[in-house]
Amino acid sequence: MTRPSAYLDHAATTPMLPEAIQAMTEQLGRVGNASSLHAAGRQTRRIVEESRESIAEALGARPSEVVFTSGGTEADNLAIKGLYWSRRPADRILLSSVEHHAALDPAQWLERSQGARVTLLPVDPVGRVHPSELRAAIADDPSGVAMVSVMWANNEVGTVQPVRELAAVAHEHGIPFHTDAVQAIGQLPVSFAESTADALTLTGHKIGGPMGVGVLLLARGLTPVSVLHGGGQERDVRSGTLDAPAIAGLAAAVRVAVREQEQEHARLTALRDTLIQRVRQAVPDVVLNGDPVDRLPGNAHFSFPGCEGDALLMLLDAKGVECSTGSACSAGVAQPSHVLLAMGADAATARGSLRFTLGHTSTQEDVERLVDVLPAAVERARRAGLS
Amino acid sequence: MTRPSAYLDHAATTPMLPEAIQAMTEQLGRVGNASSLHAAGRQTRRIVEESRESIAEALGARPSEVVFTSGGTEADNLAIKGLYWSRRPADRILLSSVEHHAALDPAQWLERSQGARVTLLPVDPVGRVHPSELRAAIADDPSGVAMVSVMWANNEVGTVQPVRELAAVAHEHGIPFHTDAVQAIGQLPVSFAESTADALTLTGHKIGGPMGVGVLLLARGLTPVSVLHGGGQERDVRSGTLDAPAIAGLAAAVRVAVREQEQEHARLTALRDTLIQRVRQAVPDVVLNGDPVDRLPGNAHFSFPGCEGDALLMLLDAKGVECSTGSACSAGVAQPSHVLLAMGADAATARGSLRFTLGHTSTQEDVERLVDVLPAAVERARRAGLS
Repeated sequence: MTRPSAYLDHAATTPMLPEAIQAMTEQLGRVGNASSLHAAGRQTRRIVEESRESIAEALGARPSEVVFTSGGTEADNLAIKGLYWSRRPADRILLSSVEHHAALDPAQWLERSQGARVTLLPVDPVGRVHPSELRAAIADDPSGVAMVSVMWANNEVGTVQPVRELAAVAHEHGIPFHTDAVQAIGQLPVSFAESTADALTLTGHKIGGPMGVGVLLLARGLTPVSVLHGGGQERDVRSGTLDAPAIAGLAAAVRVAVREQEQEHARLTALRDTLIQRVRQAVPDVVLNGDPVDRLPGNAHFSFPGCEGDALLMLLDAKGVECSTGSACSAGVAQPSHVLLAMGADAATARGSLRFTLGHTSTQEDVERLVDVLPAAVERARRAGLS
Repeated sequence: MTRPSAYLDHAATTPMLPEAIQAMTEQLGRVGNASSLHAAGRQTRRIVEESRESIAEALGARPSEVVFTSGGTEADNLAIKGLYWSRRPADRILLSSVEHHAALDPAQWLERSQGARVTLLPVDPVGRVHPSELRAAIADDPSGVAMVSVMWANNEVGTVQPVRELAAVAHEHGIPFHTDAVQAIGQLPVSFAESTADALTLTGHKIGGPMGVGVLLLARGLTPVSVLHGGGQERDVRSGTLDAPAIAGLAAAVRVAVREQEQEHARLTALRDTLIQRVRQAVPDVVLNGDPVDRLPGNAHFSFPGCEGDALLMLLDAKGVECSTGSACSAGVAQPSHVLLAMGADAATARGSLRFTLGHTSTQEDVERLVDVLPAAVERARRAGLS
C-alpha cells in the first residue's frame, strides 16, 4: 500500500477547509443574482453582504472597503492599473523587484504601452525591501509617483516585508500604497487598518477558500479605474455578476484562517523549523533562502548546489513528495526565478532551488516523507546534472 | 402553505444543473494548481484540459480556442479591449446599440481614455442590427476598424441577431468579429465554426453552470492584449490561477445545455408562447417587445402602459413571481433601458417594461402563477402611477 503524497506546495494552492466547502456548496443549490430586485436576488445579495461584513471584520477593514474580484491576479491588476490610470498625470509605479508576476506584469505592460515609468526597488540578500530604498526612489520625482506596491510576504522565499514602514514612506508624499497579502493571511496577523495600506490583495485558494474569488481591500476615497467594465457592480469599481457561492466560501475561509492564525503560526513555525533542520541534516550543503527569521511560518526555500530544481522536483514527485521550484504560475517555464536573481543569486543557484510550503493539512509525517526520500533524489539529480 | 416562487428570471441567472453541481463539488475536495508540475498539479491540469476539450467539442470550436475567464463580463472586456489594443493604430470599435453593458462599457471607456472611436450601430424597432448598417459604418473608414461586436441574442428583449451575416460583412474587410453569446447557449444552436465569429463569449451561470467562470472562444491567430496580466496562464492571454472546480462545472453545464438544446428550444418556445398568449389575455393592452418570431425561446418582454416597471416588479415579487425590468446588472438604477430606447421606445414605455425569462426548471405552473397575480398587480401599479 502506498502512502498518500506529502503535499508540500500550500503556497501554490491549499486544500479547501471543510467550513468553506460547506458554505459554498450550500449556495450552489440556490438561485439568485445579487443585482436582481426580487426575493431570490435579495437573498443572494444578503449572502454577499454578510460575507463582505465578515471578511472586513476579520481583516480590520470596513465592509465598504471590500471589493470582490476573481482572485489575486485580478485584484493586483485592479490595484496597479486602476490606481495608475486614476492618478494620471502621475506616471511612476514603484514595485519591489520580488513581486509576484500578477503585480510585476501589469506594471510592465503599463510601461510598454501606457506611458508608465516603472522602478523596481532592490532587495537585500534575504529579499527584503528597505524603506530607505523606497524613500530614495520616491525622491527622484515624488509628485510623479502614481502608486507603490510591495507584497506582504514573498510567495517564493517567504520573506516578510516591512509593510507598515513602507506605507508610511509612501504616505509622506500622499502616494497610495498597495500590498499583495495573498500569502500572509492565515499565517501572519493581518489588519488592513493597522497596516495603513491603501489597498490589499487576498485570494481564496491560498487560505483554504475556493479558487476563482479574491478581494481587493480598498481604502475609502480611492477610486481606481476599473479593469473590468460593465454592469457597475462593486460601486462601479469591478463589474461582473457577484459569485455568491464562492464569496460565501471565501468568507468562511477568512473567518477560520484568521481565527486559527495565531495557533497555526506556532504550529507551522515549529513544523517548518523541523523541516529545515532535517533537510540540513539530510543534505548538508543545502542553502536556506529568504529571511531566516522573519519569514512565513509555512515557508522553507532551499538551493541545492549542483541540482536542477525541475529535475529534483520530478524525482521527489515520483516518490510522493509534492513541492515547487517557485511560483506555480511560472512553473514549467525554464526561467531562473526573478526573486532569487534580485536577491543576488546566480542563475545556476536560482535554477537549483525548491520551495516547500506548509499549510493547514500539513503534519510531521509530511516532513518525514520528504527527508526519507530527499538524499537519494538529490544524489540522482546531481548525477544527472553532471552527465 | 405558500407555493414556492415562480422564478421567471433565468436570463439573470439560472439554477445550477445537478450534473454541474456534482462535477464542481467533486473537485472542491481536491487540491492542485493546474500550473504545478507535481502529480496533484497534473491531475488538476487534466481536469482543466478535459473540460476545455469538452466545451470546444460541444460548441464547434478547437480546444486551443477556449480561453477560460471569470465570466461573461471579463470575456467581453478581453475581446473588446484586447482586440482594440492589439490592432492599433486601428482605433474604431463598432458595436450594436443594444449590447450588454459588459460590451458597451469597455468600449466607452476606451473612447473616453484610450483614444478609441466608438460607433453604435442602430437597430430596427424589434432590436435587430441590419448587415447593411454594419457595412455602411465600416465604409466610413474600413482600415480604421479594430473590431466589431454584436451579441448573438439580446439579454433584455430576446431578439436574435444575424451573427453569421454580420461576421461576413466584417470579414470583407478582415475585421475581427466578436459576439456575446451568453444568452444563446442552450437555447439556440451555437457553433463557433459555423458562426464564423472570431471571438465568442459564454458564461456559466446563464446555462446551468457555476457563477464566476466563463469562456472567450478565440479563433487561432488572434492575440488580444491581456486584460489580466500575471502568471501567463491560457497562453498568456489571461493570467490567474485556473479555477478547476468551476471549469469542471462549466464543462458539465455546457455538455448538458448543448445536448438538450433542441428539445429545450421546443419546450421553452411552447411555454413562452403560452405565457405571451396568457399575458395578453390578462392585460389586453400589453405590448410585446423584440422580434415576435426570431427571439430567444425563453424570453418574453412586455411594456405595460401606465405602469412603472419597478413598481410592478415589486408587486409581483410580493405575490411570489420573480422577474426583471431588464438587465440584472443595471437593476436598481432608475434609468430607462438603453435597449428599448435604441429600438425607438419613449422613456415612459421603456420604464414600464418587464422581462419574463424561462429556463431549465420552468414549468406551466410558473406561467399560471404569473397570470393569476398579474392583472391585480398591473391595476395596482397603474393606480400608483396616477397618484
